[in-house]
Amino acid sequence: MSKSVAGPEIEKLIQLLARVPGLGPRSARRAALQLIKKKQQLLGPLAEAMSVAFDKVQICSQCGNVDTLNPCTICTDPRRDNAVIIVVEDVADLWALERAAAMNCVYHVLGGTLSPLDGVGPDDLNLRPLVDRASAGDIKEIIIAVNATVEGQTTAHYITDQLDGLDISITRLAHGVPVGGELDYLDEGTLTAALRSRTRL
Amino acid sequence: MSKSVAGPEIEKLIQLLARVPGLGPRSARRAALQLIKKKQQLLGPLAEAMSVAFDKVQICSQCGNVDTLNPCTICTDPRRDNAVIIVVEDVADLWALERAAAMNCVYHVLGGTLSPLDGVGPDDLNLRPLVDRASAGDIKEIIIAVNATVEGQTTAHYITDQLDGLDISITRLAHGVPVGGELDYLDEGTLTAALRSRTRL
Repeated sequence: MSKSVAGPEIEKLIQLLARVPGLGPRSARRAALQLIKKKQQLLGPLAEAMSVAFDKVQICSQCGNVDTLNPCTICTDPRRDNAVIIVVEDVADLWALERAAAMNCVYHVLGGTLSPLDGVGPDDLNLRPLVDRASAGDIKEIIIAVNATVEGQTTAHYITDQLDGLDISITRLAHGVPVGGELDYLDEGTLTAALRSRTRL
Repeated sequence: MSKSVAGPEIEKLIQLLARVPGLGPRSARRAALQLIKKKQQLLGPLAEAMSVAFDKVQICSQCGNVDTLNPCTICTDPRRDNAVIIVVEDVADLWALERAAAMNCVYHVLGGTLSPLDGVGPDDLNLRPLVDRASAGDIKEIIIAVNATVEGQTTAHYITDQLDGLDISITRLAHGVPVGGELDYLDEGTLTAALRSRTRL
């Protein structure tokens, strides 16, 4: 714990900034100072934006996305294909897929993956509502876009089991060489998968 | 510019966070998401702390420090030696010296260094008030603790000229090997200075 060098209000700001992911204790001090220097242009607007976010942001009761609307902008967008649901672990994954803009469908955010070792079971995830959405009909495809980790794959299998018997096509993301990736740096599993799923040129 | 993936309020928060030093566009998104997830523990308190800082923080009219008091806590501290002033470029340098806690004196923040190429002249810095403080008497020593850059040294010489004729001891920080530093990684200038200022064991 470093010595307090500014008033308690500034110290409190520094301590809270240090808890923001991406900032540590040292960069939090630098950030606080810059915020104070850019009081009108940055500190004021940021305080306001955070206050607005605090008041308005909520979890979408349909898909688990975060938004100021509930149901969220994506769920209520009439131009989207509601018959295709992409299942993701986290809102960050949803944002990443939206940036890719490859599909124009809806999402379902699980809020994590099954992890018996960490005590995360099916009831700790946003899983039951997914089965309900799938059972309600009108769903053609569910794309399971969880991370390619052991927990992710376990979760994918669990979801597949839960949706068994429904007339829904259940798919997952392709494994392969990342675009721009160098073979030399890839693990054997990825290379094996890329070879197995090779496509004709 | 990446595609907007969340509501305008969240996008605005991300854009403002991206302007905080230490956070870029990518980490700002991650930070925003974590802030939203930790709404009660982090987002709310941080919004409040920023709002308080925005309302209360001001520049000390005596030394140029930032604080919620004016004159600042350091200038009004009766246990400090007001006869010794450490001159620094920036509040961050003041904080660094306060953390070192090697001296118990007061400060004067210049707000930058002379830099003719960048159009920064004496009137753009908090220099005149320093001369006024020095001329007002009761000052025994002024320690010029500017960075060891060309601009810093130019500024140091300018200050020394301005204070010429006053009965004040003007000193500067010692040059030498940083504590914990390895000689192998130091430049010739530092090593030369360290040799010249060698002390008896």
